[in-house]
Amino acid sequence: MKGILYGIGVGPGDPELITVKAVNILKNIDVVIGPRTQKKGSSLALDIASPYLKPDAEILELVFPMVYEEETLNTAWESSSNEILNQLNLGKKVAFLTLGDPMLYSTYIYIYRLLSKKAAQIETIPGITSFCAAASRLGFPLADTNDIISIVPATCERKDLDRALAISDTVVLMKVSKDFPGIIKSLQTNNLADNAVMISKCGHPEESIHYNLTSQEALKPNYLSTILAKRSSK
Amino acid sequence: MKGILYGIGVGPGDPELITVKAVNILKNIDVVIGPRTQKKGSSLALDIASPYLKPDAEILELVFPMVYEEETLNTAWESSSNEILNQLNLGKKVAFLTLGDPMLYSTYIYIYRLLSKKAAQIETIPGITSFCAAASRLGFPLADTNDIISIVPATCERKDLDRALAISDTVVLMKVSKDFPGIIKSLQTNNLADNAVMISKCGHPEESIHYNLTSQEALKPNYLSTILAKRSSK
Repeated sequence: MKGILYGIGVGPGDPELITVKAVNILKNIDVVIGPRTQKKGSSLALDIASPYLKPDAEILELVFPMVYEEETLNTAWESSSNEILNQLNLGKKVAFLTLGDPMLYSTYIYIYRLLSKKAAQIETIPGITSFCAAASRLGFPLADTNDIISIVPATCERKDLDRALAISDTVVLMKVSKDFPGIIKSLQTNNLADNAVMISKCGHPEESIHYNLTSQEALKPNYLSTILAKRSSK
Repeated sequence: MKGILYGIGVGPGDPELITVKAVNILKNIDVVIGPRTQKKGSSLALDIASPYLKPDAEILELVFPMVYEEETLNTAWESSSNEILNQLNLGKKVAFLTLGDPMLYSTYIYIYRLLSKKAAQIETIPGITSFCAAASRLGFPLADTNDIISIVPATCERKDLDRALAISDTVVLMKVSKDFPGIIKSLQTNNLADNAVMISKCGHPEESIHYNLTSQEALKPNYLSTILAKRSSK
């Protein structure tokens, strides 16, 4: 197997927040995979990478179902990883693109695990995370000196959310669309609501920013919204 | 005040892990600040940025004392922010460089807070964090689906460390040079020691990586070492 797979983080969405390393690798890629869900027609990650690709680079369309049935997911990942393996066996340089960072809540992690077991040569290129982009955009220092930060998908169990909020100086809350009033209540209980801000589609043309979340419990945030919150006593 | 201050994250140390946005801004900078400590002669952040600077870009040397006396620190930051303000009043485009991300445990945060109060125009450019770089380098997936991650400076109080470890699926432990055996014990107690790896000077020529930390309590990690650890039950 002479090919190599690059897992490439293309950053949070702003096309300029890709790294020089990612750009240099993309210039020599033979096959590029920008995973898309069945719902969306295009891939933002692919749009970001496109300007750097060789004119004859092949786009491999792999569809990753946005479902929670483990069996359906496993079948899809197994099939996708086999397709990638075929390309590697042909000696191709393959790029698997991911928004944000490839090692943080990404589909790439599953592909990486499967292909590592099959002894594929893999190199992973880190990307700017969505919460770092949000913090810079908002002028929201995430942590200094001995501050503890937790990154919590708000889709987790409520008790796990509450335990994480209790011990954190700063919280990055992702996927806050489900039970928004409940999330606000948890932030209040833990003295994290006063210095909280929610950002949706950070850096995109439709970006929106909300402060004073406690008075906005009726908001219906989209799935890609993130809350940054800091303990008031600090 | 016509000038603008850019707080620029230049990434974890690998010169290629700077963003295209940072590079494009650096090309037009008049004055660049790469903070250095009194101990070290050169600035790694400045070395990374140098190839992109205009030939006549001015390097402003500001020394930030590596001490914990609040008064000494405040005086240094106040004096540095005033020097930057002078440049902005001259209409200069000023870049303040920071390794990693500017909103995470950086000197820039203090400068940002002081200059925000003085109504300076500021734009912050996020950077690749050291722990994302380490995760990609090590093939260490940080989190999937509902995993909770904590980022903990091991210099914090032991009880805070233990509380954070207890609620986390993945832990990023920074500044682990102090009481290394104690840190390992805390990881063990919280079922986080078996899947733990320590990396020092990630991406540098003198990079070192250590697995099986429980059998290496005698290690003397340097200040810039990071441990990534994942709960075994997952």
